[in-house]
Amino acid sequence: MDGDRIEEATLANSPVDEISHLALDIGGSLIKMVYFSTGSEQSTDKTQKNSSKDSHGVSGGNKHRNLLNGRLYFLKFETSKINECLDFIQSKQLRCRGVQHCGFPASDKNIIKATGGGAFKFADLFKEKLDISLDKVEEMSSLVSGANFLLKAVPSEAFTYVNGQRNYVQIDHNDLYPYLLVNIGSGVSMIKVDGDGKYERVSGTSVGGGTFWGLGKLLTKCKSFDDLLEMSHQGNNRVIDMLVGDIYGGMDYLKIGLSSTAIASSFGKAISENKELEEYKPEDVARSLLRMISNNIGQIAYLNALRFGLKRIFFGGFFIRGHAYTMDTISVAVDFWSKGEAKAMFLRHEGFLGALGAFMNYKLVEEFTNSNPPVGDLNDNGIIECCVQVSS
Amino acid sequence: MDGDRIEEATLANSPVDEISHLALDIGGSLIKMVYFSTGSEQSTDKTQKNSSKDSHGVSGGNKHRNLLNGRLYFLKFETSKINECLDFIQSKQLRCRGVQHCGFPASDKNIIKATGGGAFKFADLFKEKLDISLDKVEEMSSLVSGANFLLKAVPSEAFTYVNGQRNYVQIDHNDLYPYLLVNIGSGVSMIKVDGDGKYERVSGTSVGGGTFWGLGKLLTKCKSFDDLLEMSHQGNNRVIDMLVGDIYGGMDYLKIGLSSTAIASSFGKAISENKELEEYKPEDVARSLLRMISNNIGQIAYLNALRFGLKRIFFGGFFIRGHAYTMDTISVAVDFWSKGEAKAMFLRHEGFLGALGAFMNYKLVEEFTNSNPPVGDLNDNGIIECCVQVSS
Repeated sequence: MDGDRIEEATLANSPVDEISHLALDIGGSLIKMVYFSTGSEQSTDKTQKNSSKDSHGVSGGNKHRNLLNGRLYFLKFETSKINECLDFIQSKQLRCRGVQHCGFPASDKNIIKATGGGAFKFADLFKEKLDISLDKVEEMSSLVSGANFLLKAVPSEAFTYVNGQRNYVQIDHNDLYPYLLVNIGSGVSMIKVDGDGKYERVSGTSVGGGTFWGLGKLLTKCKSFDDLLEMSHQGNNRVIDMLVGDIYGGMDYLKIGLSSTAIASSFGKAISENKELEEYKPEDVARSLLRMISNNIGQIAYLNALRFGLKRIFFGGFFIRGHAYTMDTISVAVDFWSKGEAKAMFLRHEGFLGALGAFMNYKLVEEFTNSNPPVGDLNDNGIIECCVQVSS
Repeated sequence: MDGDRIEEATLANSPVDEISHLALDIGGSLIKMVYFSTGSEQSTDKTQKNSSKDSHGVSGGNKHRNLLNGRLYFLKFETSKINECLDFIQSKQLRCRGVQHCGFPASDKNIIKATGGGAFKFADLFKEKLDISLDKVEEMSSLVSGANFLLKAVPSEAFTYVNGQRNYVQIDHNDLYPYLLVNIGSGVSMIKVDGDGKYERVSGTSVGGGTFWGLGKLLTKCKSFDDLLEMSHQGNNRVIDMLVGDIYGGMDYLKIGLSSTAIASSFGKAISENKELEEYKPEDVARSLLRMISNNIGQIAYLNALRFGLKRIFFGGFFIRGHAYTMDTISVAVDFWSKGEAKAMFLRHEGFLGALGAFMNYKLVEEFTNSNPPVGDLNDNGIIECCVQVSS
């Protein structure tokens, strides 16, 4: 269970009674959660110090702002086990306690910002079980807000992946737009982003993370997404994929630039071999599947970037999950199809764009770009240290 | 066995001793064969009459031309059963007898035009078993020649497929180019065609017919490609595909133009349902697979057509096989992604573009565009009646 595992890693550092404001992205396969906590006693002191220092509002009038130091935490649950998410929220009484202790505005009471299709589908369930209303934030808008936040506020967020190496890229805030955001959830959305709140969903594909997991489950009997990813790491796609060399008798097909090891037909070798599914190693099946899907997404993304003249393609979504082979295949696909002219870029918080975007919709974090550094480095749990401005 | 079935249908009308000149397209999954026969006694008489009438060459010098009426026949074999193809050629002594009886030039003896990767891979096998040399014709070039021949010479060859209806399209020869040719074999090649012999392979995907057949075989234990297609015809993709409505609680996601019945994630429902592969109907699995692959090819084809400003996209390759649901899905995909601006078009001889192109390389059929009609209508077996000009 993802949720459980990450929970252990993060909640040890975040006393329950100081957790506040959470946002959800309820997708077809996974629920992604982001919540803010002022953390330990020490953090709170620091917060109060900062808070008093900056308690006079930046903008005039009767609006006062407080700065709170804290951290953004990230959790995942499987959508099919939504009760675990409900139990988590209820048992920790996350939002309500947060309101009491951190002085967030009372108007937020019993309202949680939520995006993704599940914000519609499960609205009644949240109301009934927790008396919480889901304040729906549009999905594409959330993805874009989340990505813009990460790209502008978090140092070392974006990186390229070449030959097994992460190369972190400093993004010039004045040269960020336009870019293509490819969010690989159960399905894939491709969004042209032209600025804050300026975006258009230009394409997508149904061959996404849900296909990898769903088809992979049918083919390999894997127990979880991570299990499937781990298997793919051990496998060899050449066992089942039909390579150019398999068709050309070991030769390259140079005239059209295809080497003998290029995949001519994903799963094509299964046609001629008299083998049942059970006779293939699940690792090899998982590898072919991962490569097929990653490559396909990379290709469609590149074609869309080309169509709109976008130089940068950022890939996000839970499908990637920092998995080396996935990033490698996507990178190679973009490199191959663009003849080296375009680069695939990845985000450290890839899976939480939507949830972060919904969180941004609280308008708590207003001026992170003016802080120095606005948001601290990531630790190993992916926690983002941040300074939140609270209107009170 | 495809070969066997089509063989029965066609050879009944074509006495063995009048069959001549054959060409092969040896792909990763299937061998496609095209051969010419002057057919019955009656045809031979007619041929001789035409032949004597036109025996004086069109071009001057010492080159004489004969017109032979005859038919082009089409056969398929599975590449993994290549011996059946070899046996067929040997038992019928197709080429050699043809040379004896039809007066084709002796220089062709023991040489067969062949394209596809198998022309390289199996060259030694043909030499060893049949003492036949394969004269290799470049694959993309063959596809283009075959498509151009069909589009120019065969009336009612191209059609659109809308709402279950084939609508035949008369192609204006002066307005044929440029077009995008999408050949869906084991893998998929996308070729921008600018004229006779003028073309560029601009894209492709490894998710093609070999993926449908290979993955389909693993998932459904189907016995043949046709078996799998037939199953897909009976199935319902909504059982396993995650629809927009499944994520959004039955609602459309109108803001981005996705209806509740649009597929959000191919095979995505398999994630949350605690069902093993065996608990799904193979028909439903086959349907989801076919829809995933057809839709994906339609999308990538459209993106490439857009990139080069090509108005027409012709789909060929054995994957389509006149299958209504395949054509419907591809048509809908092109229509959806192009917002109605582009049309998918299909070819009646879709599976034989490469083999026909290799056959054209014999330079037997030189001036079909000047005949009236150059090539007759198709009969139910897909046989092309044609008039071949022979240099002697």
